[in-house]
Amino acid sequence: MGYMGRWEPDARGRLSRAALELSAERGYDHTTVADIAAAAGVTERTFYRYFPDKADAFFPDASFVCDQLESVAERESRAGQPALAASRVAVQALVDVATQEPQRILLTTRLISSTPALVGRDLVRFQQFAHAIGLGLTRGGVPPMDAELAAAQAMAIWSVAISRWADQPDRPLGDVVRDAIVASAELNRGADPSWRQD
Amino acid sequence: MGYMGRWEPDARGRLSRAALELSAERGYDHTTVADIAAAAGVTERTFYRYFPDKADAFFPDASFVCDQLESVAERESRAGQPALAASRVAVQALVDVATQEPQRILLTTRLISSTPALVGRDLVRFQQFAHAIGLGLTRGGVPPMDAELAAAQAMAIWSVAISRWADQPDRPLGDVVRDAIVASAELNRGADPSWRQD
Repeated sequence: MGYMGRWEPDARGRLSRAALELSAERGYDHTTVADIAAAAGVTERTFYRYFPDKADAFFPDASFVCDQLESVAERESRAGQPALAASRVAVQALVDVATQEPQRILLTTRLISSTPALVGRDLVRFQQFAHAIGLGLTRGGVPPMDAELAAAQAMAIWSVAISRWADQPDRPLGDVVRDAIVASAELNRGADPSWRQD
Repeated sequence: MGYMGRWEPDARGRLSRAALELSAERGYDHTTVADIAAAAGVTERTFYRYFPDKADAFFPDASFVCDQLESVAERESRAGQPALAASRVAVQALVDVATQEPQRILLTTRLISSTPALVGRDLVRFQQFAHAIGLGLTRGGVPPMDAELAAAQAMAIWSVAISRWADQPDRPLGDVVRDAIVASAELNRGADPSWRQD
């Protein structure tokens, strides 16, 4: 197990890597907090000092990422970018984070899609990301409804791209995201804002 | 309690109404399955015959709605509607369902937003709706990535609109949805599909 091979002072990182690697081997439901703590060389009590529950160990960077998304969206909209363009720069920040640890992101994405207990948690995390982007846009002067819609559209692009990339990780994630952005722009090109004309 | 006043053969409907009304009064966490069953005049065992757990009683029509969304999206895309237009007709189906029981939808939406235990479930349900729309579009010939993006965009519109309407239910839901559609179209008008040109 690679995560035990190096000297690592970082218990939080060790715990989340152990959670992921053990679950990838045995399945999430067959991995206990005790197993995870033991593999990371700490006590169960230490586990709970870092994470409220088992599922949380799979999303160790959620609040860091939210902060980043919010500040990128705020910066870009303050700089005069339209809402959709600013929220795409936030998606680029997600690509950059994922590209730093592609193996972890790949394992996590695959584990979630095969683990019903994690699907709801993952959706909550996505919602938090969307909320963070929306908050940043609003702080940058975008009206609330536009901010929410742009953030949701950006997260839809991310969601479509990350799941496709997890199936075919040979293509760079950034390329898959670009395809999704182009597809989204194409869909909306010349779309008619009319509503129930019958 | 209004739901006990009429003769109703429909235990499923009685249970979900009792779950909602009791939770609106006392809070979700202070409402037990035993309370819900008693208020609906059935045993706990009967409750579990209809719903796997307490949270499920708040989403009694989820699978019916999914079927509807899928068939509407398929019908519209087969009839030649572009993906985004077809998925908006699916949103109209959601408006129609909600408009039949506005009080229930209003109570449910408010309860969810004030109950952390229900937020994840609600997101899963939204995801199921998006999946159903995407499936219908795909069956109607829309390429998978376009179908997913259009479905996600439609659900973003629905999500933004339903939460705004729950705050100000005096305006018809259909009008709030139309505003969100117009805002989404505006955001995308002339949006540049370019990606990281720096």
